[in-house]
Amino acid sequence: MNKAALEKLLDQYKNNQIDKSNVIKKLKTLPFENLDFAKVDHHRSLRTGYPEVIFCQGKKDIHIKKIYLSLINQNQNQNLLLTRANVSIFEMLFEIDQRLIYNELAKTISLHISKKRKKGLVLIISAGTADIPVADEAAETANICGANIEKIYDVGVAGIHRLTAYYEKIQEARAIVAVAGMEGALPSVVGGMAKCPVIAVPTSVGYGAHIDGLAPLLTMLNSCSSNITVVNIDNGFGAGFNASLINNRDN
Amino acid sequence: MNKAALEKLLDQYKNNQIDKSNVIKKLKTLPFENLDFAKVDHHRSLRTGYPEVIFCQGKKDIHIKKIYLSLINQNQNQNLLLTRANVSIFEMLFEIDQRLIYNELAKTISLHISKKRKKGLVLIISAGTADIPVADEAAETANICGANIEKIYDVGVAGIHRLTAYYEKIQEARAIVAVAGMEGALPSVVGGMAKCPVIAVPTSVGYGAHIDGLAPLLTMLNSCSSNITVVNIDNGFGAGFNASLINNRDN
Amino acid sequence: MNKAALEKLLDQYKNNQIDKSNVIKKLKTLPFENLDFAKVDHHRSLRTGYPEVIFCQGKKDIHIKKIYLSLINQNQNQNLLLTRANVSIFEMLFEIDQRLIYNELAKTISLHISKKRKKGLVLIISAGTADIPVADEAAETANICGANIEKIYDVGVAGIHRLTAYYEKIQEARAIVAVAGMEGALPSVVGGMAKCPVIAVPTSVGYGAHIDGLAPLLTMLNSCSSNITVVNIDNGFGAGFNASLINNRDN
Amino acid sequence: MNKAALEKLLDQYKNNQIDKSNVIKKLKTLPFENLDFAKVDHHRSLRTGYPEVIFCQGKKDIHIKKIYLSLINQNQNQNLLLTRANVSIFEMLFEIDQRLIYNELAKTISLHISKKRKKGLVLIISAGTADIPVADEAAETANICGANIEKIYDVGVAGIHRLTAYYEKIQEARAIVAVAGMEGALPSVVGGMAKCPVIAVPTSVGYGAHIDGLAPLLTMLNSCSSNITVVNIDNGFGAGFNASLINNRDN
Amino acid sequence: MNKAALEKLLDQYKNNQIDKSNVIKKLKTLPFENLDFAKVDHHRSLRTGYPEVIFCQGKKDIHIKKIYLSLINQNQNQNLLLTRANVSIFEMLFEIDQRLIYNELAKTISLHISKKRKKGLVLIISAGTADIPVADEAAETANICGANIEKIYDVGVAGIHRLTAYYEKIQEARAIVAVAGMEGALPSVVGGMAKCPVIAVPTSVGYGAHIDGLAPLLTMLNSCSSNITVVNIDNGFGAGFNASLINNRDN
Amino acid sequence: MNKAALEKLLDQYKNNQIDKSNVIKKLKTLPFENLDFAKVDHHRSLRTGYPEVIFCQGKKDIHIKKIYLSLINQNQNQNLLLTRANVSIFEMLFEIDQRLIYNELAKTISLHISKKRKKGLVLIISAGTADIPVADEAAETANICGANIEKIYDVGVAGIHRLTAYYEKIQEARAIVAVAGMEGALPSVVGGMAKCPVIAVPTSVGYGAHIDGLAPLLTMLNSCSSNITVVNIDNGFGAGFNASLINNRDN
Amino acid sequence: MNKAALEKLLDQYKNNQIDKSNVIKKLKTLPFENLDFAKVDHHRSLRTGYPEVIFCQGKKDIHIKKIYLSLINQNQNQNLLLTRANVSIFEMLFEIDQRLIYNELAKTISLHISKKRKKGLVLIISAGTADIPVADEAAETANICGANIEKIYDVGVAGIHRLTAYYEKIQEARAIVAVAGMEGALPSVVGGMAKCPVIAVPTSVGYGAHIDGLAPLLTMLNSCSSNITVVNIDNGFGAGFNASLINNRDN
Amino acid sequence: MNKAALEKLLDQYKNNQIDKSNVIKKLKTLPFENLDFAKVDHHRSLRTGYPEVIFCQGKKDIHIKKIYLSLINQNQNQNLLLTRANVSIFEMLFEIDQRLIYNELAKTISLHISKKRKKGLVLIISAGTADIPVADEAAETANICGANIEKIYDVGVAGIHRLTAYYEKIQEARAIVAVAGMEGALPSVVGGMAKCPVIAVPTSVGYGAHIDGLAPLLTMLNSCSSNITVVNIDNGFGAGFNASLINNRDN
Repeated sequence: MNKAALEKLLDQYKNNQIDKSNVIKKLKTLPFENLDFAKVDHHRSLRTGYPEVIFCQGKKDIHIKKIYLSLINQNQNQNLLLTRANVSIFEMLFEIDQRLIYNELAKTISLHISKKRKKGLVLIISAGTADIPVADEAAETANICGANIEKIYDVGVAGIHRLTAYYEKIQEARAIVAVAGMEGALPSVVGGMAKCPVIAVPTSVGYGAHIDGLAPLLTMLNSCSSNITVVNIDNGFGAGFNASLINNRDN
Repeated sequence: MNKAALEKLLDQYKNNQIDKSNVIKKLKTLPFENLDFAKVDHHRSLRTGYPEVIFCQGKKDIHIKKIYLSLINQNQNQNLLLTRANVSIFEMLFEIDQRLIYNELAKTISLHISKKRKKGLVLIISAGTADIPVADEAAETANICGANIEKIYDVGVAGIHRLTAYYEKIQEARAIVAVAGMEGALPSVVGGMAKCPVIAVPTSVGYGAHIDGLAPLLTMLNSCSSNITVVNIDNGFGAGFNASLINNRDN
Repeated sequence: MNKAALEKLLDQYKNNQIDKSNVIKKLKTLPFENLDFAKVDHHRSLRTGYPEVIFCQGKKDIHIKKIYLSLINQNQNQNLLLTRANVSIFEMLFEIDQRLIYNELAKTISLHISKKRKKGLVLIISAGTADIPVADEAAETANICGANIEKIYDVGVAGIHRLTAYYEKIQEARAIVAVAGMEGALPSVVGGMAKCPVIAVPTSVGYGAHIDGLAPLLTMLNSCSSNITVVNIDNGFGAGFNASLINNRDN
Repeated sequence: MNKAALEKLLDQYKNNQIDKSNVIKKLKTLPFENLDFAKVDHHRSLRTGYPEVIFCQGKKDIHIKKIYLSLINQNQNQNLLLTRANVSIFEMLFEIDQRLIYNELAKTISLHISKKRKKGLVLIISAGTADIPVADEAAETANICGANIEKIYDVGVAGIHRLTAYYEKIQEARAIVAVAGMEGALPSVVGGMAKCPVIAVPTSVGYGAHIDGLAPLLTMLNSCSSNITVVNIDNGFGAGFNASLINNRDN
Repeated sequence: MNKAALEKLLDQYKNNQIDKSNVIKKLKTLPFENLDFAKVDHHRSLRTGYPEVIFCQGKKDIHIKKIYLSLINQNQNQNLLLTRANVSIFEMLFEIDQRLIYNELAKTISLHISKKRKKGLVLIISAGTADIPVADEAAETANICGANIEKIYDVGVAGIHRLTAYYEKIQEARAIVAVAGMEGALPSVVGGMAKCPVIAVPTSVGYGAHIDGLAPLLTMLNSCSSNITVVNIDNGFGAGFNASLINNRDN
Repeated sequence: MNKAALEKLLDQYKNNQIDKSNVIKKLKTLPFENLDFAKVDHHRSLRTGYPEVIFCQGKKDIHIKKIYLSLINQNQNQNLLLTRANVSIFEMLFEIDQRLIYNELAKTISLHISKKRKKGLVLIISAGTADIPVADEAAETANICGANIEKIYDVGVAGIHRLTAYYEKIQEARAIVAVAGMEGALPSVVGGMAKCPVIAVPTSVGYGAHIDGLAPLLTMLNSCSSNITVVNIDNGFGAGFNASLINNRDN
Repeated sequence: MNKAALEKLLDQYKNNQIDKSNVIKKLKTLPFENLDFAKVDHHRSLRTGYPEVIFCQGKKDIHIKKIYLSLINQNQNQNLLLTRANVSIFEMLFEIDQRLIYNELAKTISLHISKKRKKGLVLIISAGTADIPVADEAAETANICGANIEKIYDVGVAGIHRLTAYYEKIQEARAIVAVAGMEGALPSVVGGMAKCPVIAVPTSVGYGAHIDGLAPLLTMLNSCSSNITVVNIDNGFGAGFNASLINNRDN
Repeated sequence: MNKAALEKLLDQYKNNQIDKSNVIKKLKTLPFENLDFAKVDHHRSLRTGYPEVIFCQGKKDIHIKKIYLSLINQNQNQNLLLTRANVSIFEMLFEIDQRLIYNELAKTISLHISKKRKKGLVLIISAGTADIPVADEAAETANICGANIEKIYDVGVAGIHRLTAYYEKIQEARAIVAVAGMEGALPSVVGGMAKCPVIAVPTSVGYGAHIDGLAPLLTMLNSCSSNITVVNIDNGFGAGFNASLINNRDN
């Protein structure tokens, strides 16, 4: 029931075409999403600059194509982000729409139309070169969400002087994404240097007692830096999205 | 080496009392914290409104007392927060300083002097009554950090209508702390309703396959809502602190 | 020892061809399954409408074919369900029997002959599109067991209004299967809305701290909704079977 | 907004005391629980025979007393069940209300007023004597929910003949609760003997590699009997509640 | 230092070609294996009827071939057992030695020359058809070790009457190997029926919360039957070997 | 239905007081335990020398007393073993029966009347002094079951020469119980030195990554010695019982 | 068989009092520990400066007293170290021997007689004040083993400048013990700054997803610094002992 | 800012080209690595004989090639070690530089130019043949780091006499690497025989309850030998590197 239907119902009631008990009965099961604010939900991406996002992992190519076309048909000019997309998905969609850009490391496909920038800075810091795919997913996400981003890569804690060199940049950021596999100690150190919230992303980069990322995940959850929150292993998207939410607020 | 010492060193160099190679040798080991910005660190709480925090768990009473006195002596007018403090710690300190206030549920002791409020709203939402201690720790923390807070308690997902009633309040918040034990599903639902970042706090409330909070921790890390980040089990302080960081930014 | 043999033994005893102590000695090791009620077991599917079920995973094609033929030879007209069957198994059996129907998503093969419907309704609710294979396995199972089923798919808790729209349908069900991967919060919310038992099925859909489905499994076991029981990860068959057991009772 | 308020709103609209856009604005945030069906929720226990339940673990005595009085004041004649209640809680409440009955093993307190029985039988089967507290919690729950119950205790699988002796009783049940600690194999064997759903309850009874009940929990989740669903470790209440839901349906 | 060398040393000492302190110095580091009983170790298989065993998993084909030839060259007439050998290994060795026999399910290759049988009976009982490879590995091992074996397969606890039918055979055995995947309840039931030791073997057959065999492993370790010991997941060889040790003792 | 009832039934049938179909109907549900061999079970301890065993952990004192009296009343002269019994249980029972002997370390109470010894030797080997309680439980169990036992304590692998000194004794044993906490390496070394089966018992002695005994449990399950089987953490009783089963067989 | 006995055996052989085969038979079972080098083992502490060590946890007071007296009687002048000793153990032993010194935090008792210092430096670095007990156990151990030690405490990575200030001291050390609870990131950072081996000690200081020290243990095992090895959770003794082994080598 | 830049800054200050406050401002953020000791870091490998190391796992071929060329261009004569390199990487680099040597088992590529040997001995001991790849990685690492190495392979604890034969060699070593999969008991036994530090390396060789190496990892962490430290599963490099650090110290 959309707003029009609701207005019609009220008209019918006022015109005595439906009695009060039946109006109440219909309102009882009034679907949340059919009111005005639900429409707002549908159009939220346009108004706020946040893109529609498709998580490709585990979806069939034909499935992804359909969702893509449906979103494009709704609105030609909204930003779109596809995550965990391999190159064959990109090629399939690129045939349809040459505006798409692929980040092979991040495995993201972007349709980046609305490029209005928010003030502030989201910093993406990563520990090892093998963590770059996750860091780049965070960067692509924060970028298409409208945040200015800068990347500081390969600054793991085993050579702490590499990180301390960026002290002033770290002070400047509104939100930081800190990505690390192995022992995952980077966010703790970054957190101690930063004034803003740090979103820690453990990666599955490691072996042995690393247990596919559980080791750095636990590291980050137990951080003694106060300004750290954590997302799931390899969840660069979630980190980038939250960082942009923190950065982009204007009021 | 503080600023004065550094100035003196430079003076000596200019006055040829020390040669260049010896200046460089001394600068090599220049301790980070002895420069100006380190002083800034020491005084950060005053300028930013963030309190000094003492995590009491595992510390002896006499130890806590000493730290407390040292901080008070440094500055009579800064905010202080003690977390995980049982009542005997409060009684010990209250004898010294009657300005202290104890939240028995949250186990926090506050010296809340600087009460300047930031704009915005931090919402503290919790699932069950047994989660209130953790939720209140988050609330006390965000409050003393200068955020306006509101609490919505006992709105677990098993009765989802209790939560949907707060839709507009959730829309209004700049940052939300969502606290839940048991299955920990609350943050996912809150995340779907909110536009702002949601900081999820799993609690150790539960039994059996709950494994002291690991169950809701995993739930929250795997949330399909995009705007969720997670802190350690029962870490109300961390959640409240990050929420206030997100809320308080003015620029 | 079947019924005939037992009758013969009693005849022999009555005719003094065997003495009492020897009768008792033989009865001592009387195999449970060779009595009448064991035969009843063999024919249970016919009388109750429950199908014979073959779990294909880990069985060789030739093995499955033999079991299939053996069951068909026993009874041409009973329902049969094969679960976790890939398409090559279907093709192998379809050559023999064109009555078979394949659900590619659910990976089930059905020989659905006896289509008598029980009263009532089994509702299959799933969270994400990637959970559909498990949800469909539950649906196929409940269906061939004689329950009326309806499916409500893609109603994850991150958009709770999608679920609340189905309030009345949820009230109507005799048994509900709730399928979810990721954080697995769906059954808790459904449980809070339903009057009937809800069978929760965690799926292996997720990544990172999901640990192949352990995360949603723990979520569901710790649910604060009272009317939830849980089956193994990805066990759509078990959920559908129990739901039909609950639904189908007539007396 | 309850029904009266809603009716008043519609009256105001019909009488032109409020315009259409304002009605729609108010309806947008219409709280789910304030409509009729929410009231139904509040009174569900009376109409259906299900009791109000208080989970005492982790709640303070004074807190439990308040909840108890509030529920009693609402309705003097509804059934009440308190679970995980130690004897001091019972003594506190018994002073107020001498109708209360305490099951010391199950740690349940019952106010059992409405004793209408449903048809059918819920069977509570447990493996060892140490599992009786959990089994009795299930029994007390199913009983106060209106089911006829029978208990078969101390029939662990290490002496399988003890269990097979109850074959006919097992055939008769509408729902079975099977409780086991140690290796937790009982539900599998019961499941193979029963026609009805079996709700398996792992208990924390064991030591060493038992890991506080995780061992039998895993056992039960992996059962090769099709008619088994599982609840959390030691969750006798959940098992008894679901068993009564299955048993009690009349239509 | 073998026996000859030791004799030579003693000769040298007696003939004053070496003094006492030097004899003692040499004896100090006397390698254990070079004395007579070490030779006994090398020849133990011949005297006791136990075969030499090669665990093929993780070894290269060429590696296995060399070990095989070395053992055969030592002794043409000893029994040999290769476990976890795929068909290509068999084909490689069969070219060299046509006496070899391959059990494709068990993945064992046997050179079974010395077929002297010990008294007694080792019973191999398995739960599901998918457990047969592990059960057959146990059977092949016990067989080549000289035990009389009998197999009872597909007698899982979900149909307990299938197992109770074998009561007398179970009473007769000197040692039993009980193999089960899924929930692993079989050994508990067998243990309750048997007088002899039961060696439980969990298998990796299962899915979801089975965790590659950890679930039945825990089940078996927590068994409430007193006469159960456990070997590693899928370790049919170890179970068969221990069962034959128990069975074969003559004195 | 006991033997008498069965005889009566046969008499009735022979005397035409009951017809054949009704006899068969009654036999269908013939309880396993009421036949002769079930009585044999009841008296097994007398004939075989195995004691009745009471596992005291988790049982109330009054409960244990009742079981004790019941067993004693059945048969004054059978062996009894109570495990995990603290001193207060011993004092309670000693008042009744001064023949009882308490092993304070093992926490076992023995009524050791029938002291007939089997041939052979069960060796109990333990690693550290802290493992002695578990080792002594095994020793007490094997002893009361009729095996000759010898103890070799404090021979952990960190000083391997302590163990190799017992080479000949280890060769002599019919069954060995090897008890170890910490890293649990002892059974592997013993296994390599022994010809007989070795039953490994992990203990909960350790700290940190020991995880209450899981570390040595895993060690023992992964042993590369072929003649090792494992029981639950701290399960000295199970190890001693199986060792005596292996040792005592006469035929 | 000690050296004297061995000499006697050789004499007998030379004097033809025993024949060669009997000499060899006796040598076969020659106990390792009874040769000279075994005596060397007994006296190793005196010659090398390493103390005898008693791990008190889990030992009874009377037991500890006996071991203490036995060691003192052997040698009045050797160093002794008791770890995990509570104050009552100290008081018991101090009555006997007033030379003993107690470190209440480290829970160590030292009899430090031989105070010869080795060259070099062992550095003990710890992250938080709550880690001091473990760090002090390492320090006491390294100290009594003859190493010069220095302590750098409370230099956790959340304030990395506190650590970098000690750069030159870290460069100077021959071995470093790095102790940390919480996320356990300290050793990685120290490792990156040091040239010598760093022995990492995780502590059980933390809560929630810390899992009693497993979190920092995994952190340290996954460290991307090359010069890190790890000991068990809270094992300050092991770390201090290995550090002194590394430091003390003279040749 | 390198040394030259720093000198220039001081010159400018002395020459009044920049005022004191600006010098201090620049020094505040002085990057750690740009001072002299940072250069030392860059050249450390040359001075100390330690090689540059590239961990190839997870890096693309082209990436490895670039790093290789960059290092070679910096210095033609330094040692280089590439670990976890498959043969295709070797072939790619061998085309460029024929001095490279490949160890196919260890998967290491060495450019071993500076072959100066340190005094002392690093012993590499491994349990099974399947552990050789990890043991060889340790050996290659220690070798290229300048240590004299010897290998003792295939001396698992199930045949302890194989190990005790090497008693004197073990006494001689300055550092030992002990590598073991399966139950991982080898380092404990080696530790008990050695005077020097033993670095334990668990390997992923095993199956079932081995959990990819977690079993031997826990074994080693819980070792009751005092002189053991542990590295990550399969981390032969780390073990070899630390062993060479311990061995190579000259002062």
